[in-house]
Amino acid sequence: MIPEPLARAPARAHDLAGRDILSVSQFDPASLGAIFEITDEMRAIVQRDGGTDLLTRRVLAALFYEPSTRTSASFIAAMQRLGGSVIPITQGVQFSSVSKGESLPDTIRTLEQYADVIVLRHPVVGSAKIAADAAAKPVINAGDGAGEHPTQALLDLYTIRDALGAIDGLHIAMVGDLRFGRTVHSLTKLLAQYDVRLTFVSPEILRLPLNVMNDLRDAGVDVRETYNVADIVGDVDVLYVTRVQKERFTDLQQYEEVKDFYVITPDIMRSARREMILMHPLPRVTEIAESVDADPRAAYFRQARNGMFVRMALLAAVLGKA
Amino acid sequence: MIPEPLARAPARAHDLAGRDILSVSQFDPASLGAIFEITDEMRAIVQRDGGTDLLTRRVLAALFYEPSTRTSASFIAAMQRLGGSVIPITQGVQFSSVSKGESLPDTIRTLEQYADVIVLRHPVVGSAKIAADAAAKPVINAGDGAGEHPTQALLDLYTIRDALGAIDGLHIAMVGDLRFGRTVHSLTKLLAQYDVRLTFVSPEILRLPLNVMNDLRDAGVDVRETYNVADIVGDVDVLYVTRVQKERFTDLQQYEEVKDFYVITPDIMRSARREMILMHPLPRVTEIAESVDADPRAAYFRQARNGMFVRMALLAAVLGKA
Amino acid sequence: MIPEPLARAPARAHDLAGRDILSVSQFDPASLGAIFEITDEMRAIVQRDGGTDLLTRRVLAALFYEPSTRTSASFIAAMQRLGGSVIPITQGVQFSSVSKGESLPDTIRTLEQYADVIVLRHPVVGSAKIAADAAAKPVINAGDGAGEHPTQALLDLYTIRDALGAIDGLHIAMVGDLRFGRTVHSLTKLLAQYDVRLTFVSPEILRLPLNVMNDLRDAGVDVRETYNVADIVGDVDVLYVTRVQKERFTDLQQYEEVKDFYVITPDIMRSARREMILMHPLPRVTEIAESVDADPRAAYFRQARNGMFVRMALLAAVLGKA
Repeated sequence: MIPEPLARAPARAHDLAGRDILSVSQFDPASLGAIFEITDEMRAIVQRDGGTDLLTRRVLAALFYEPSTRTSASFIAAMQRLGGSVIPITQGVQFSSVSKGESLPDTIRTLEQYADVIVLRHPVVGSAKIAADAAAKPVINAGDGAGEHPTQALLDLYTIRDALGAIDGLHIAMVGDLRFGRTVHSLTKLLAQYDVRLTFVSPEILRLPLNVMNDLRDAGVDVRETYNVADIVGDVDVLYVTRVQKERFTDLQQYEEVKDFYVITPDIMRSARREMILMHPLPRVTEIAESVDADPRAAYFRQARNGMFVRMALLAAVLGKA
Repeated sequence: MIPEPLARAPARAHDLAGRDILSVSQFDPASLGAIFEITDEMRAIVQRDGGTDLLTRRVLAALFYEPSTRTSASFIAAMQRLGGSVIPITQGVQFSSVSKGESLPDTIRTLEQYADVIVLRHPVVGSAKIAADAAAKPVINAGDGAGEHPTQALLDLYTIRDALGAIDGLHIAMVGDLRFGRTVHSLTKLLAQYDVRLTFVSPEILRLPLNVMNDLRDAGVDVRETYNVADIVGDVDVLYVTRVQKERFTDLQQYEEVKDFYVITPDIMRSARREMILMHPLPRVTEIAESVDADPRAAYFRQARNGMFVRMALLAAVLGKA
Repeated sequence: MIPEPLARAPARAHDLAGRDILSVSQFDPASLGAIFEITDEMRAIVQRDGGTDLLTRRVLAALFYEPSTRTSASFIAAMQRLGGSVIPITQGVQFSSVSKGESLPDTIRTLEQYADVIVLRHPVVGSAKIAADAAAKPVINAGDGAGEHPTQALLDLYTIRDALGAIDGLHIAMVGDLRFGRTVHSLTKLLAQYDVRLTFVSPEILRLPLNVMNDLRDAGVDVRETYNVADIVGDVDVLYVTRVQKERFTDLQQYEEVKDFYVITPDIMRSARREMILMHPLPRVTEIAESVDADPRAAYFRQARNGMFVRMALLAAVLGKA
């Protein structure tokens, strides 16, 4: 399906029936608010009953050209807790039809003969759009390379709203690899639509790309940058941490000099506010010490759980059952 | 289960309860007609409600020793839309029990302890028969190497009947690799039971094998052969295209000389009848131009969808619920 | 979850709600009896209706770090026949989150955001305990390397009880690789709690480890050892066969000399009692001749089926629905 109309006239939740979810640029605060209300309902349903029969007899094709345990498990559980079922196509994609030279549009047009909605993970930027253009049924982008991963950004935003009540007025810091992190770029685009202060904390070589920064300034967002988490930890409502990958550094001595500025420890958390939250898209390696996990402000596992609720809301919405 | 009695006394649909589906030779026009009536019902159910509860609490083991995205997805969706569930065993088969030296009969006899029906894809000819002999529960052959792929032939025939109303009286042309194409051989066997004209279009080195040709002539079928699609496209009700693989040619110059005779373009389709259909078992590579897809006579994606309906009919039938 | 309290104060079945299943040492004859009563009910339900709705809207994460067709298929079918659904994570685990360096506790804590219970197969001893310590939801150990595989031991014991009415008073012989066989060690631990006679039949280099033997003697079990199945086959109620792997022998001539002592043939079975059973954890290679399969005393495929029933009982129990 062609998403441009959505991108131009932002989607309200009741508009999502039959639509694709390709990019965060489809959403504005009003449509996000509507989706988050459905998400609240989904969470209440799961906590009360474990699930519902809303999508009984509906079938999701989960087409993962690269493995992603977390994202695929989250979508599978979301569909199952809605009463629907899943065709898991996670391994072997590259060895079967695709190895026989089938194009992505042909694979998609075949799968939509069997399924009611397609979730696609693909290593190449723009793949989700190509799939959506080929499909008559809804396509949900579950990550297309360095491109977009809109459901991740939505679950991040939902987690902030859920923990802190509202987005407007918050001071949010993004930490780590801000240059290559798809997650950070998508969430930043969503946040630019709210009245927030953003601080970006990274080593020099992993700073936020200029175009993203300029978009934020054009949108009138109050933006700052710093090298050191300690500088800002006492003043933020949200500390969103991503991984600083050693492999990104050509000069390993440089890495050794800066790496400790980006590791969250109980000591760092002692300087943070009482009501702030610490987020991470996971998987986490060393950038948050495990001794922080017991801190009630550590929100990363709740964040994963919220992902299931947001995906339930989106699946119900695109299938016209929200 | 031993299918010979079926092969000798052709199956009526209500006879399929507890039976295996191993070969097209199990079926005659009467039993095919009965299966296609159930298939019509399955299609109506899916279009109206998405599915049914007919096979609730029934479990299918989908045992794929080689990946086949299309066939496995089709069977999985079929079972799920019938209300049943699926144990997907697609990857890892070769690394687990099998790598420990377990025989196919032992694997099958174990899986039937858990499942009510087994769908088997295996690279070796005759595997489905070996599995069925070992099993007390129904086994459905989803392709055994160069052997049979009976559900593919059934969905092909259903698609022809569905589009053109009847099989008798039709002129059907098969195009491409007629020598190695399992699909073509199986469909041809089924068509030989009807009053049809068949034309085979292929390069010399990919002609229909002599034994298949002789069987057709013995059955009294009106059979012709030609090198060029253009010769017959204006006179056929069905153009069934398969891939001409470059790898089959030892002399690449020969390939270059003939390849264009076997590519279906909008230009070729302009010479075709208005009410004919263009079929392909998929995946398609270059043998049908993408610009043909929008032609209402292009039936290949519908053909895939019909595969799900036929498999629903067969699963319901072998489990005694048709 | 921490299982020590279970290990100390043995579990009754109604105690299993919310608990982990990590080790056979959690169980005593009273709790085993309670689990086997539920297992009897599960079997009756499957035989009568195919399944039940007991675990509708409950989700199982099947996390297999190494493939195990039999065990994963058995757990998947068990959950589905209880009306629940499954997130299958069998391949790709090692290539996704894990390859990004995620720790097992983090993977588990993420998956429990989506699922209600986690079944874990992992190549490293102690992994199940680590996972259970990290999880708030129940974890079931489906094999952790050379460690434990408690559900296998439970299904073995259930099969003996089911076939022979009671455990007390039986003479049970274990045959084959008694040195490395996790299955044998776990079952032996369970049997030591009953009034049984045990005979161990193996080549010298595959004898039962001294510590296992000493534990049995300390528990007051009547234990014997011999080299040859023929010595004891006429006197046993249960002949439990495992594979003697050629690879275990450094001296291949030694292997050739002894191997035939450990292959069960129809000839051997002629010396066995009429009411005894022949068991094997499967996969079987050459250690039981296929010509023995038709013998009503050959219980190994029933044993696999009992595995599904036992796992249904355990899933229902840990989810508080038994």
